[in-house]
Amino acid sequence: MIETPQLVDQYCHGVLRTELGLGTFEAQLGRGGGPPAPGTTFFDTWAGFAVRRWCPPLLGLEPHCPPAHYLARRRELGVLEAGRRLLRGSGIGAFLVDTGSSGDLTGPGEMAAAGDAEAHEIVRLEVLADQVAATSGTVESFLANLAESIHAAAGHAVAFTSVAGVRHGLAVGPEPPDAAEVHRAAGRRLAACGTFTGPARRLDDPVLLRHLLWIAVGTGRPLQLLLDGPEPGTRAAAFARATAGLGTDLVLLPRGPQDAPAVGLTAEFPHVHADLGRALARTGARAEPLLAELLDLAPFGKLLFSSGAGALPELHVVAARSFAVALGRLLDGLVADGAWAAADARRVAHLLAAGNARRVYGLGGA
Amino acid sequence: MIETPQLVDQYCHGVLRTELGLGTFEAQLGRGGGPPAPGTTFFDTWAGFAVRRWCPPLLGLEPHCPPAHYLARRRELGVLEAGRRLLRGSGIGAFLVDTGSSGDLTGPGEMAAAGDAEAHEIVRLEVLADQVAATSGTVESFLANLAESIHAAAGHAVAFTSVAGVRHGLAVGPEPPDAAEVHRAAGRRLAACGTFTGPARRLDDPVLLRHLLWIAVGTGRPLQLLLDGPEPGTRAAAFARATAGLGTDLVLLPRGPQDAPAVGLTAEFPHVHADLGRALARTGARAEPLLAELLDLAPFGKLLFSSGAGALPELHVVAARSFAVALGRLLDGLVADGAWAAADARRVAHLLAAGNARRVYGLGGA
Amino acid sequence: MIETPQLVDQYCHGVLRTELGLGTFEAQLGRGGGPPAPGTTFFDTWAGFAVRRWCPPLLGLEPHCPPAHYLARRRELGVLEAGRRLLRGSGIGAFLVDTGSSGDLTGPGEMAAAGDAEAHEIVRLEVLADQVAATSGTVESFLANLAESIHAAAGHAVAFTSVAGVRHGLAVGPEPPDAAEVHRAAGRRLAACGTFTGPARRLDDPVLLRHLLWIAVGTGRPLQLLLDGPEPGTRAAAFARATAGLGTDLVLLPRGPQDAPAVGLTAEFPHVHADLGRALARTGARAEPLLAELLDLAPFGKLLFSSGAGALPELHVVAARSFAVALGRLLDGLVADGAWAAADARRVAHLLAAGNARRVYGLGGA
Repeated sequence: MIETPQLVDQYCHGVLRTELGLGTFEAQLGRGGGPPAPGTTFFDTWAGFAVRRWCPPLLGLEPHCPPAHYLARRRELGVLEAGRRLLRGSGIGAFLVDTGSSGDLTGPGEMAAAGDAEAHEIVRLEVLADQVAATSGTVESFLANLAESIHAAAGHAVAFTSVAGVRHGLAVGPEPPDAAEVHRAAGRRLAACGTFTGPARRLDDPVLLRHLLWIAVGTGRPLQLLLDGPEPGTRAAAFARATAGLGTDLVLLPRGPQDAPAVGLTAEFPHVHADLGRALARTGARAEPLLAELLDLAPFGKLLFSSGAGALPELHVVAARSFAVALGRLLDGLVADGAWAAADARRVAHLLAAGNARRVYGLGGA
Repeated sequence: MIETPQLVDQYCHGVLRTELGLGTFEAQLGRGGGPPAPGTTFFDTWAGFAVRRWCPPLLGLEPHCPPAHYLARRRELGVLEAGRRLLRGSGIGAFLVDTGSSGDLTGPGEMAAAGDAEAHEIVRLEVLADQVAATSGTVESFLANLAESIHAAAGHAVAFTSVAGVRHGLAVGPEPPDAAEVHRAAGRRLAACGTFTGPARRLDDPVLLRHLLWIAVGTGRPLQLLLDGPEPGTRAAAFARATAGLGTDLVLLPRGPQDAPAVGLTAEFPHVHADLGRALARTGARAEPLLAELLDLAPFGKLLFSSGAGALPELHVVAARSFAVALGRLLDGLVADGAWAAADARRVAHLLAAGNARRVYGLGGA
Repeated sequence: MIETPQLVDQYCHGVLRTELGLGTFEAQLGRGGGPPAPGTTFFDTWAGFAVRRWCPPLLGLEPHCPPAHYLARRRELGVLEAGRRLLRGSGIGAFLVDTGSSGDLTGPGEMAAAGDAEAHEIVRLEVLADQVAATSGTVESFLANLAESIHAAAGHAVAFTSVAGVRHGLAVGPEPPDAAEVHRAAGRRLAACGTFTGPARRLDDPVLLRHLLWIAVGTGRPLQLLLDGPEPGTRAAAFARATAGLGTDLVLLPRGPQDAPAVGLTAEFPHVHADLGRALARTGARAEPLLAELLDLAPFGKLLFSSGAGALPELHVVAARSFAVALGRLLDGLVADGAWAAADARRVAHLLAAGNARRVYGLGGA
C-alpha cells in the first residue's frame, strides 16, 4: 500500500470564523449560491457525501451519520475547536493561502495555528491592485505604489496568483504593455474605484492585468494563473514563451482535462507547472481516472496538489483525503500489475503530494 | 448488491409496428443511415453486442446467439409479441414518449399496453407548430391556434420538448420575442409550409422557436431542451436565468461530459434538471465511468434516467439494462469502499431511476 | 485471457541509426524539445515508466532498472542489435512506415529486416510535393510531375498520408480546386521553394493541399488524414461526403475523444475508418478506459491500431505492448461479466489489431 506523505496544499483559502446553521452549511456544498430545489438537498452531492464520509470521525461521530447530527456536534465543539480537529485531521502539513478571497476568512497565521501546520501567503494581484488604488490619489502614485507593493509582497509571500490574468489580461497578447497604455489603464481604474460607493467592478482591464503579471514575474516569485475564458491553452502558451528563461516559475490551474493543451506546456517549458487540485475538486468516483488522465499530460515532476478549499475546513479535509485515496489506489494498482516499481511509485507520490511544491515555492524539505 | 428500482424513462420514442429483416434491423444499430462497409457489420458495435447480450434471453434464446437466429426467433414470435416480451423485460415501469418523431411508431397508449407500464405523452413543440401551420390560413389564426394548441396539449401531456430550441431558438438571446417579430416569423413559416409539396424544411427560425419555448414555459409543464449547436451551456444558462422563479422546470438533455457547463446549472438553479440517458446511449464499457462523471456535475436530486430509444424495443431494453448495471456496479463499489452508506446508495439509486422524474413530472409515487 | 494477435502498425516512422546518450534519449521522451526542468527528468513520465517496464527485459535486464543501466546496455549491444531485439519483441508483424518524416530514420526495408516483419511505405503528400517542386522548372512541369509522381507512388506505397490536409487544405471546403486556382497556387509554391536557401516553409496552401488530396483519392489507395486545427470533425465530414462512393478509403487519425464527431463518421460512411494509436500514444493507466471510449464511437470493423512511434524503437514497443495490455484487460473484463462472448472478443481483438488494417490496405491475410 503506497502511503501519501503529508501534503502541501499549494492553493487554498482560509475558513469562516462564524458558527453555521444547517442551511448556511448546506449552501456551501452547492456551487451556485441559490438554494436547493424543493424536495432536494445539496447534501445529496459528491461534496455532501464526501463530507459525511470523512469528517464525522474527526469530530467523534460515525461516518455517514445524518447531516443534522454532524452540525449539532460541530456547534457543540464550537467553530474554533471543530476547525482545529478538521484541519489537523486533513493530512495537510502546509497551507498556501490566497489572502485575496472575499468574506471573513482566517489568514495564514490562523491556519497554521489551527492546523498545526506550516502556512504561507499567496498574494492575489487583482486585490492588491485595488487596495493600492484605494489609497493612491494620482495615476503616478498609483503606479509607483503598485510596483512597490508587489515587490514588498514578494518579501513575505511565497507566490502571486491571478484569477483574471489569463481570461482578460492575456486576451490580446502576452507582452508587457507599454508605459503610455499602462498610464491610461491606471487612470481608468482609479476613476472606476473612485466612482462607485461600493466595491468597483472586478478588475478586467487587459492592459492593467498584464502590467501586474509582468511586475510579478519580475520579482522571481512563482506566479499562479487560473485558466479560464476562451482558449486558455493558447494564451498560456504565448505567456510561457514570453517568460521562458526569465527565472520565474508559472503554475497553471487547469479546470480539468479540457485544459490538456495548457497542461502539456509543462513538458515543453521547464518553468511551467500545473495544479492537480482544481480539476479534482468535488469529484467522487471519478477522482482516480481523472488523476490518471492528468498524469498522462505532464511530467510527474511538474504537478502539484492543492485543495482549492475555503470557508469550510471540511472542504480541505475532503480534498486532501480524496486525493490521497485516489493516488494511493492508482499507484497500488500500477505496482500490483508490474507497471511501476514500488520505489518509483513512492517517489512519485511524494513529488505530487509535497516535493514538487516544496521545490517550486522554496519551502525547504523538498 | 444495490438493486435499481423500476425505471421511469423520461424521454423515449415508440417502436416500429412492422416486421424487420436482418438488414433493416442491422441498419437501426448504425447511427447514420448508410449501409455498413463491405466486410463489416453494425452488429459489431456496442449497440449490437448489447442487444445480443440482453435481448435473446427475453425471447427464450441464449445470450450472444448469432444475429440471424435472433432475428428468426423475433419473426417467429411476431413484432407485437416480441415487442411485448422485450418492453416487459426492460425494467421500465413508465415511458414518457415523444410523439413528434417521424416514422410509423407506436404511441403512449400502445407502449403502455405492450410494456404493461405507465405511459405519458411528451409534445414536441416544433412538430406541433407545423401541424398548426398546416391547418391555419392566416398569420393571425396561426398564432392564435398555436397558443391554444400548446395550452391544450398541457392538459394531457406531461411535458414539452424542443429539439431546435437551444441550437436555433436561443442563438440570439433568451428573451421572449416581441409581437411584431413573431408576426413576421409566423408569416415566413406559413409561407414555407405552403410552398413545398413535401414537408417543409425543419423549423429553425429563432424568433418562432423562442416564441414556442415561452408559450410552453407559460403552461407550467416541464420543458425538455436538447443541447446542441455552438455553446449550448451559455445559451441554457441565459434561458435558465430568464425563466428562474416562474415555476416551470427545465430538463436539459446533454450530449455528454462536453456539456458539463450546462449540467452544472442544475446546482445553480432550483428549476433546472438534467437527463442521464442521452449521454449514456450506445456506451459500453464506458457507461460506469461516464455515469460517475455525470454524478460529479449535478446534485443527485436533479438527474433523470432516460433511454432515448425508439424504433426497436431492443434499444429500450439495452439502455435500461446498461443503466441499471452501470449504476449498480458504481454504487456497489462505493458502498464496499466505505465511501457511501448502503442506505444512501439505495436512496440515490431510486432518485436517479425514478424518484426525480416522478417528482418533476408529477407522476405520483415520487 | 484474450490474446492479441500479431499487430499491424498502420502508421509509424523509422528509427534513428545513431547511438544515443542519456540526455538525447531522455529528450525523446519529452514532447517539446526543451530540456527537463532542473530537479526533474523526462524519465518521470508515463512514456519513461513504460519504457522502463517493457524494454529492459528485451535487452536482458530487469524491468524498472535505472535508466543509466538501460542506456549502458543499449550502447553495449549497439544501436542496430538493440533495435533488432526491441522491434522483434514488440509484437508488431507489419509496419506501415511514413517515409516523409524529417531526420535520419530507417525506411521500410530496414524496418522489415530489423523487425523480422512485413513493412510497407506510406507516402506523405506534402513531402512528395516539395520533392517534385525542387526538381521542376515551370508551373506546368511541376503540376504534370506531381500527378505522375503520386500515381507512380500508388504503385509501390500502400497508402498516402497528409498532415496538413485537414488543418489547411479543407479549411475552405472539400471540393477539388479548379485548374486556374491550382495553377496560381503551384506558382506560389514553386517560388517559395526557390526563394529560400534552406527548406521552404511547410506547405500550408489550401488550394495546393486540396489538389494533392484529390489526386491521391484518384489513385484508389487509402488516404490517411491527420485531424488537427479548428473543427476537424466538420471538415472531415464534408470531405467524407465529397468522396463517398468513389472507392477510396479514408483513415482519420484523431487526437482523442475530443475528435468524437470525426470518429463517428466511421458509422455513417462505409469508406471512413479511424486510427486508434494517436489517441493512445503516451497514455498510461488511462489506456484501457480511453480504448473503451474509442470503441463506443465506431463500429469495431472500422478501427485500426497504430503506434505512431518513431526515432526510438522503444516507442514502438511501448505503444504495441500498452495497446495489447489495454485491449486484453478490457476484453477479459467484458467476457468475465458475460457482456461479451469469448469468441466475439477474440474476433474483435483480431479486427482491431490486424484484420481491419489488412482489409483496408489490401495486405493479404485479412
